[in-house]
Amino acid sequence: MREVAILGIGQTKIDEHWEQSLREIGGAAAFAALQDAGIEKVDSLYVGNMLAPILSGQNQLGAFFSDWIGLWKQEAVKVEAACASGAAAFRSALMAVASGQTDSALVVGVEKMTDKAGRDVTASLATAADADYEVEQGISFVGINALIMRRYMYEYGWKHEDFAPFSINAHANALHNPYARLHEKISVEKFEKSSMVSTPINLLDASPTGDGAAAVVIVPAEKILRQPKVIVSASAAATDTIAVHSRKEPLFLQAAYESSRRAYQMARVTPNEIDLFELHDAFSIMAALSLEASGFAEKGQGVRLGLENEIRPQGRVPVCTRGGLKARGHPVGATGLYQIVEVVQQLRGECGATQVDGARVGMTQNIGGSGATIFTHILKSAP
Amino acid sequence: MREVAILGIGQTKIDEHWEQSLREIGGAAAFAALQDAGIEKVDSLYVGNMLAPILSGQNQLGAFFSDWIGLWKQEAVKVEAACASGAAAFRSALMAVASGQTDSALVVGVEKMTDKAGRDVTASLATAADADYEVEQGISFVGINALIMRRYMYEYGWKHEDFAPFSINAHANALHNPYARLHEKISVEKFEKSSMVSTPINLLDASPTGDGAAAVVIVPAEKILRQPKVIVSASAAATDTIAVHSRKEPLFLQAAYESSRRAYQMARVTPNEIDLFELHDAFSIMAALSLEASGFAEKGQGVRLGLENEIRPQGRVPVCTRGGLKARGHPVGATGLYQIVEVVQQLRGECGATQVDGARVGMTQNIGGSGATIFTHILKSAP
Repeated sequence: MREVAILGIGQTKIDEHWEQSLREIGGAAAFAALQDAGIEKVDSLYVGNMLAPILSGQNQLGAFFSDWIGLWKQEAVKVEAACASGAAAFRSALMAVASGQTDSALVVGVEKMTDKAGRDVTASLATAADADYEVEQGISFVGINALIMRRYMYEYGWKHEDFAPFSINAHANALHNPYARLHEKISVEKFEKSSMVSTPINLLDASPTGDGAAAVVIVPAEKILRQPKVIVSASAAATDTIAVHSRKEPLFLQAAYESSRRAYQMARVTPNEIDLFELHDAFSIMAALSLEASGFAEKGQGVRLGLENEIRPQGRVPVCTRGGLKARGHPVGATGLYQIVEVVQQLRGECGATQVDGARVGMTQNIGGSGATIFTHILKSAP
Repeated sequence: MREVAILGIGQTKIDEHWEQSLREIGGAAAFAALQDAGIEKVDSLYVGNMLAPILSGQNQLGAFFSDWIGLWKQEAVKVEAACASGAAAFRSALMAVASGQTDSALVVGVEKMTDKAGRDVTASLATAADADYEVEQGISFVGINALIMRRYMYEYGWKHEDFAPFSINAHANALHNPYARLHEKISVEKFEKSSMVSTPINLLDASPTGDGAAAVVIVPAEKILRQPKVIVSASAAATDTIAVHSRKEPLFLQAAYESSRRAYQMARVTPNEIDLFELHDAFSIMAALSLEASGFAEKGQGVRLGLENEIRPQGRVPVCTRGGLKARGHPVGATGLYQIVEVVQQLRGECGATQVDGARVGMTQNIGGSGATIFTHILKSAP
């Protein structure tokens, strides 16, 4: 198997892009990645997307974007794993290049969620949950996460405000990221006073949706001359039951544990050696659960890392260094690619005020549904 | 890169399974494939599906089926390329096994299209076309194919009845396939008299939709002892513009030409050495265009192969030996896997009355949209 490296990255600002269509948004990130890579063509295209069939009436995004980008004749497909669609597409592309079936791949994560008159975004997001056993009962996706958060608070004795550091850190970091959806400093007080969405999840526990796309170009590592070379050191995926009620431990992300365990093994590192961790804080409870399942905190203690200021860029486990889902924004199928792009920016030392000093090993974790599909990737800068 | 072989196959009868849900249909094919393979677990799952997000409100089919089948913890994703989703999932799985990232994979193509009260199947199928530039004009998917067929008849001077042999052959072969949707012998007269759908496409030019699933288990070839060993000798994909009006030659399937060319090269065979060809006869015109673009007939002459009786199991280019999309049925995201399963049945010599004598090399071609994404696979039996 060939080692794979990232040659170029691109992203769009996450926002309500009412003036831009699905193809324009995805195309913008793709062209930026190709330009950053310094090439005009690639052999294959992998698209991560969740909602275009429902919200834009558009399937077959592989050919759709291959056509728009001008990659005629090249192979192209879409990969979907709910909110983990971005990382799913990235991993499929990795295996294609690693297997030797293709020599270069463009991976685009894209989502167009706003300006979709008459289409219900909340209902479309619920397709990540179990249609027969969860959604049929009338629960929304945020409702499922609210049940998990409430149980966590009950089991481990945390108060709602204990989750504030996740949101505060994300918002503080996003101030320095021009591509972020939200540029607003927040405080514990503001966090506690924000509108309730689904008890105990309030507006500042929840990530905003939006329109956006992120993209990377990958090639066999030996073909890269650019410094620093960003190597994909590990890629691992795992699943759990799709419905939360089927899990023995609904407060433990089994698939995060499993995929991070495999990733550490592959990259031959321990959590201690991870310089930054772009995790999937779709809701603040998910940030805590990710830290626990990935070996950065004991069960029920993920929240403590925030309270002890260890999650900031200067901390022991920097997370959401560009704003995370919470403040950079969460255009669902694109999020996994934004995470990859942001780790590359850190490894290249391009993050200014939120740069993690001497970052050499970065990890991403992208979650589909309420923990049903989880991808962990570890990137390293090689001299 | 490791050579990959097919260890087990499974399929369900295509029908209106009003009493079965999406998970039950996909599960039935998956369990059949695992049983045929003689194993209980695999390392990874790839699902091909197009319409579940729209028709069943269900995304994240990787985790959804991994859960139902009992592959907990294993990695799983869904791959989508409209009606070529089945072959797209198969190719992703191939690359995963070939790259060494996974040692065994289950690939399930599944579609639940009937008994979906209030959801418009025709509108959902149109998501395979270009939402902005084709569907927005009010054209349906069959409408696009009707324009192509009408132009073909005009350009090359064929009459509607000249397409009859494709339909007659498919229906005749399906009589011997217990999994086929339609078991009805037809004649040229019946073909000409069937109800018009979208001029010149009538009911017997068009494949029926339905509920169904097909599955295969793949592993590295060196791990298989079973005889005959069915090797995946070539896998290739290519794309074309998503909208037909953007093509220089709307009557030539560029992506079929490109993917079959690459596949012949990879498998080191010529069209002459292909013993049977499971092509994508969603509409009879597509059968003709596939034969032409894949090197079995000159441009405009694909129809002649039918008129000269060369497409029957005893002919020079046997197609649709188990009924094809026309009579076996076309549960869209599952079709590509049915084609693979059927070629395996032929290479194993299990096809009775429609067995192709001495079949050793079989080819499949799965088409997404009106030719935008096309996968060609070549399977060989190895002693």
